[in-house]
Amino acid sequence: MQFQLTKNFIQNVEQFITQKDGLALKELLKDIHFADIAELLDELNAGEATYLIKLLESEITSEVLIELDDDVRERILDNLSPKEIAEELEEMDTDDAADVVAELDENIQQKVIEKIKDEEHVADIVELLKYDEDTAGGLMAKELVQVNETWTVAGCVREMRQQAQNVTRVHSIYVTDNDGKLKGRLSLKDLLTAHERALISDVYIPKVDYVNVNTKDEEVARIMQKYDLDAIPVVDEEGILVGRITIDDIVDFIKEEAEKDYQMAAGISQDVEADDSVWQLTRARLPWLVLGLFGGLGSVYILQGFDEALSSYPILFFFTPLIAAMAGNVGVQSSAIIVQGLANDIVKGSLWNRLLKEVGLALINGSVLGLLVIIFGFIVAQDQLVSITIAISMLLVIIIAALIGTFVPIILDKRGIDPAIATGPFITTSNDIFGIFLFFYISKMILGF
Amino acid sequence: MQFQLTKNFIQNVEQFITQKDGLALKELLKDIHFADIAELLDELNAGEATYLIKLLESEITSEVLIELDDDVRERILDNLSPKEIAEELEEMDTDDAADVVAELDENIQQKVIEKIKDEEHVADIVELLKYDEDTAGGLMAKELVQVNETWTVAGCVREMRQQAQNVTRVHSIYVTDNDGKLKGRLSLKDLLTAHERALISDVYIPKVDYVNVNTKDEEVARIMQKYDLDAIPVVDEEGILVGRITIDDIVDFIKEEAEKDYQMAAGISQDVEADDSVWQLTRARLPWLVLGLFGGLGSVYILQGFDEALSSYPILFFFTPLIAAMAGNVGVQSSAIIVQGLANDIVKGSLWNRLLKEVGLALINGSVLGLLVIIFGFIVAQDQLVSITIAISMLLVIIIAALIGTFVPIILDKRGIDPAIATGPFITTSNDIFGIFLFFYISKMILGF
Repeated sequence: MQFQLTKNFIQNVEQFITQKDGLALKELLKDIHFADIAELLDELNAGEATYLIKLLESEITSEVLIELDDDVRERILDNLSPKEIAEELEEMDTDDAADVVAELDENIQQKVIEKIKDEEHVADIVELLKYDEDTAGGLMAKELVQVNETWTVAGCVREMRQQAQNVTRVHSIYVTDNDGKLKGRLSLKDLLTAHERALISDVYIPKVDYVNVNTKDEEVARIMQKYDLDAIPVVDEEGILVGRITIDDIVDFIKEEAEKDYQMAAGISQDVEADDSVWQLTRARLPWLVLGLFGGLGSVYILQGFDEALSSYPILFFFTPLIAAMAGNVGVQSSAIIVQGLANDIVKGSLWNRLLKEVGLALINGSVLGLLVIIFGFIVAQDQLVSITIAISMLLVIIIAALIGTFVPIILDKRGIDPAIATGPFITTSNDIFGIFLFFYISKMILGF
Repeated sequence: MQFQLTKNFIQNVEQFITQKDGLALKELLKDIHFADIAELLDELNAGEATYLIKLLESEITSEVLIELDDDVRERILDNLSPKEIAEELEEMDTDDAADVVAELDENIQQKVIEKIKDEEHVADIVELLKYDEDTAGGLMAKELVQVNETWTVAGCVREMRQQAQNVTRVHSIYVTDNDGKLKGRLSLKDLLTAHERALISDVYIPKVDYVNVNTKDEEVARIMQKYDLDAIPVVDEEGILVGRITIDDIVDFIKEEAEKDYQMAAGISQDVEADDSVWQLTRARLPWLVLGLFGGLGSVYILQGFDEALSSYPILFFFTPLIAAMAGNVGVQSSAIIVQGLANDIVKGSLWNRLLKEVGLALINGSVLGLLVIIFGFIVAQDQLVSITIAISMLLVIIIAALIGTFVPIILDKRGIDPAIATGPFITTSNDIFGIFLFFYISKMILGF
């Protein structure tokens, strides 16, 4: 059932475009889903993509344009006239249309808006452009089904038929008073089962979750996830219903948030993608590398302090990278689990229990690894006291690394700082320094150099 | 508008439970959303939580139970009789009910199922238990609105009123033929606007996305995301409509997938949470630490091969952890960007361009960091040739680390292996070894020890 975009298919399309065979193209793409056409456009050059956008019905191309990556869309829109862009916008839901307009150059924005024929659509888009991108206002669409509490069920159904023309998917019916203030909601189920002459005010559900236009996007995502909502109404400062946010807009947001934590853990401080410019990527990556460099210089300093071991126990210096790597790996593991736990609100119970658990874990892991080091020492006929020294100090380094990895994010979170910044380079670097210091300190105590 | 779970509130609840004051508790929890009651239960002990579950209406508690973490739910269900569990299951949608039954001990499962009164509900649950957890069959619910293509619009509305009683949210109306085979779908909009006496076969949309009961969950998530679907119907081998999957089940799945990549990058090989047992956490973490240990032993071996530098240039050994950390950090950054790019299908363009870009990035970052090393050497009055040697070899190490971090995931992906396993310990460890070797090899060439 699923369409597969093959090399062959792309070549076919390119050939038809070269031949300017619009009829053949329309026939070829007739039954293809817009999301698949968007994938096709990704594979074409800007000229070919523009040809297709101009050729196909704007009912389809408007959906295709929304699916495209920002940069691909930009290249295509650069080739379209304000009138052509306006035609695409007419077919889009207001939230998508506003997003596209916001991406245009300012001098073109006005020209495009003037060319949109539907006055209500224009007013909605202009209103949405006012809101910050990262607020409920920036996420919401104006398309919704709204009924007055004073209507009858029959009147409501009549009115809904009208409104439903503009709404792709009816999620919920929102009930307002004469001033447009949100009073509650009505499920389709209730509407289907209620008596025709009943008043809406008698059948609606007064309990309704809602957000304010200024609510932050992450809060909207949290509420919609927690309360399992498909859609949520948005009200302004006076409680007047101004829009609604649907779950599909939130899915992308949730995914991006989870990915952001991963990027932070990898030492990438801004939301970048593989296709961003070298300059953007450098800005996101270099600061963490500099932090790592300073950490490394710190360990140079520590190692210099133990240079008397160079002559008697040079083997310790050969094991230093291993100890640093272990401290880093254990710290990253512990912190990743805690950061995800904090994000999902599942880090519960007393700090004391968590401490015992982490120490227990570190003891198990550290003992197994220490045993392996002793076995390795035995195989390469290393001085056994040195092997045991390395194993013991590694065990202690692992315990400390696990504790740092666990408690730094918890403490940051308690102070209202995003714990995700604690993972990755920050934990790795501080664990390197602590680990190396501890390793040499304990070795010195045991071996006495 | 949002409910906040305060310490005070929890104490109140606990006090009422001790006093067995059911009326006061009911009054206190009357207007609280089930998701908030679930959060409350998380804070109580198993006895207190069970008391509340027994006290409140199963209409609410069934929802609460679904929201709870597996282990909390298990502790509570252990305290309920098969009849009490059955009452909760009666209120749940079939997919949730099947999930809960699957978690019960096998000897209790049968007893619980026997106590459920609604025979159709039982049959649905038993059917769902047949399917693998990670397939569309395991995700789907039996609740859906299904109409026959031979009906009229008016008859359809009548029938829908009936069916809607059992369906929490009407996403789409599915059209089937007399054999129950999926023919298409009907939007509520179409139903509202069509003529009463029109036949369904004349108004329905024959193009409908669907999945098979055996379709893997990740494929379901991909399709629903790509085609922006709120719900998707599920058919069996014969094309007969057997269930539907809604977007809220997929949201959790998408989040888990993004989190899995992060865990893999942090060196955690199974999906674990902070609250899992020490044994589960050890199993997920120890293998990667052992890998890191072997990598570390590899670098011990390499360093031993350069031991002639111990007397003449001991400073190189002090800088080894810094070099290893840099190689690791750069590798993790590069691989994280590529892994996310591959997951989101945005790694396009020729490998040649990507190579140039990564080398360019590494040159910029490496030069800045090298300069900082030279400045540091100047400040601590280090031999300038040594500083320059360290800077140059670090630059080369960074370039190689970036290339390994970029191309290992790409090559794995081309061979059909999940590139996420390449990030984290695997890249860090191999970059440690390569980095340390390169560092000493280049230093030896320049300094000639």
